[in-house]
Amino acid sequence: MSRFWSDIVHRLIPYTPGEQPVLAHPVKLNTNENPYGPSPRVLEAIKAELGDHADALRRYPDPTARTLCETIARHLGVRAGQVFVGNGSDEVLAHVFQGLLRHAHPILFADITYSFYPTYARLFEIDYRLIPLEADFSLDVDAYRQPNGGILIANPNAPTGRALSLKSLERLLDANPDSVVVIDEAYVDFGAESAVGLIDRYPQLLVVQTLSKSRSLAGMRVGYAIGHRDLIDALTRVKDSFNSYPLDRLAQVGAIAAIEDVAWFDKTRQAVMASRETLSAQLEALGFRVLPSAANFVFATHPDEDAGAIAAALREREIFVRHFRLPRIEQFLRISIGTDAECAALVTALKERARVTE
Amino acid sequence: MSRFWSDIVHRLIPYTPGEQPVLAHPVKLNTNENPYGPSPRVLEAIKAELGDHADALRRYPDPTARTLCETIARHLGVRAGQVFVGNGSDEVLAHVFQGLLRHAHPILFADITYSFYPTYARLFEIDYRLIPLEADFSLDVDAYRQPNGGILIANPNAPTGRALSLKSLERLLDANPDSVVVIDEAYVDFGAESAVGLIDRYPQLLVVQTLSKSRSLAGMRVGYAIGHRDLIDALTRVKDSFNSYPLDRLAQVGAIAAIEDVAWFDKTRQAVMASRETLSAQLEALGFRVLPSAANFVFATHPDEDAGAIAAALREREIFVRHFRLPRIEQFLRISIGTDAECAALVTALKERARVTE
Repeated sequence: MSRFWSDIVHRLIPYTPGEQPVLAHPVKLNTNENPYGPSPRVLEAIKAELGDHADALRRYPDPTARTLCETIARHLGVRAGQVFVGNGSDEVLAHVFQGLLRHAHPILFADITYSFYPTYARLFEIDYRLIPLEADFSLDVDAYRQPNGGILIANPNAPTGRALSLKSLERLLDANPDSVVVIDEAYVDFGAESAVGLIDRYPQLLVVQTLSKSRSLAGMRVGYAIGHRDLIDALTRVKDSFNSYPLDRLAQVGAIAAIEDVAWFDKTRQAVMASRETLSAQLEALGFRVLPSAANFVFATHPDEDAGAIAAALREREIFVRHFRLPRIEQFLRISIGTDAECAALVTALKERARVTE
Repeated sequence: MSRFWSDIVHRLIPYTPGEQPVLAHPVKLNTNENPYGPSPRVLEAIKAELGDHADALRRYPDPTARTLCETIARHLGVRAGQVFVGNGSDEVLAHVFQGLLRHAHPILFADITYSFYPTYARLFEIDYRLIPLEADFSLDVDAYRQPNGGILIANPNAPTGRALSLKSLERLLDANPDSVVVIDEAYVDFGAESAVGLIDRYPQLLVVQTLSKSRSLAGMRVGYAIGHRDLIDALTRVKDSFNSYPLDRLAQVGAIAAIEDVAWFDKTRQAVMASRETLSAQLEALGFRVLPSAANFVFATHPDEDAGAIAAALREREIFVRHFRLPRIEQFLRISIGTDAECAALVTALKERARVTE
């Protein structure tokens, strides 16, 4: 608290990211990172950009990230003018809130979803209304039929992992032609249907994706939005009033290489999905209830054991999962899909704990 | 224009960065980049972080950039809690506007200064008042004695290059104890006095610096602010409501290496300052009036030649300088200090042009 702070600062409730443990070999299943490294082409591209002396770093990067936008466009079958890139999808979402979601009516999003959304809304002084998910954590698009300044849906949802069908999404878009509908597809590549193919039919649709998950570049910070040129223009105007050069040179070339290596992308995401099915079955065998997941994590609860106690016990064994102390989900754990060895370590720890507490 | 835009988007006047020409070997003296590459340690540090497979990139970076903050603190003789880092000083300044400069009174800055300031003010709906520089483009701190919601001074100023003495700055701080005073020291290492040593005496003082200029890392995007813990807390709260991970892994390790190599830093900035004196003398010999510069650029005008015409003629020879079509300075050119060969190419071109137009 300080008299020097702008008023808004007093009202902020900053987002808390998952813990980054300072340990040699943690089993880190708490921030939905990819268990596999990025495409080998990423390393090659960054080394090529650095050259022998890293002299390229003395020059500003391309402020428009034109080649990266063109690469994303080509890969997704859209036009480069329908692509906006940012310093991680978190920055992209921040610009979306400021540039596209400040209107007379409150914006709408689920009561259980990415917990950064209310944080952005406070930062940009945007009213929001929470729309409760169903009892099984599925999303009823008809609950969004009300005046709104925008709708925000994570698909698949976080931290539940549940996916919404394109058919449901189209019903929502048809019923909501007059305000922006943002679909946050951070996890879409692990089993959900992308809405990118709908952008030419729905000028109010904006799809946000990231390279942090399925492209394994969380350490590099690249995200993007896909939508009608008018929506992209708003984001560009905000970005050019905020920071001309949000993506550094290495992030731009690394992202291009990651997107171009489709074989690596497919191989690693298939491996994650296979591990997810194995882990889900193992957790169910241990008595957990596991929600159907289309993401690189599972959301699980045990009928007899306290989620917080399980998380704490795992933590003592240097196994990190995410536990949100929030209404409706305080008895759930969000467990990122690790390598098969990491998943096995988790299952072993849970089995041993079950024996001890029997 | 679109009904989907937030109201604010219609009122933005985005900043236009200097041109990034797509040419093999432009003489690029238009964006104040460093003519020398970054410290060789930057390349080593980035390669070490990448390792053999770039697997580190699958993990999120440290959201607090703790090691980088500690390195900056140690180097500047402050405490780590007095340091805030961001994705270039442009992002840091954006957070400063939102978190520290939105108050009842308008903020104050010079009529001729970094042209991004009014752009930020519009983005965050902050009233501002322009305080005219003197006729010789020097800054009279007594002109800032008026109710204000904050004061923003670039020192040395851009695009003029003129420096303000610490003594003058202290007079301004003494007269203005109740609102934040931001000193933007992007160019300070090329010959001006830094205000960092004053932060323990003035809790309202925030100093912003960048690695883009004197550390030659424009392509990497790292900037920081130094000030009282309360000011840093405001910036951290805004940042954690905007983007948890603004600095990627490679930027963090590259920045640390650049700051630690003091010998490289001193050698290259001395070389730039020496070239600046040579170039200034050569320009004066050609009839230019050159303002005294404490930055890595000079601001020059010719009594008989139109600045826009000179810039256009240089451009045809693939020599790029910056010309701002703005009141009071439309007859000036801002010329970044290049290598001695680049400066010589500029002088040769100007001499040949002088012969042609005689």
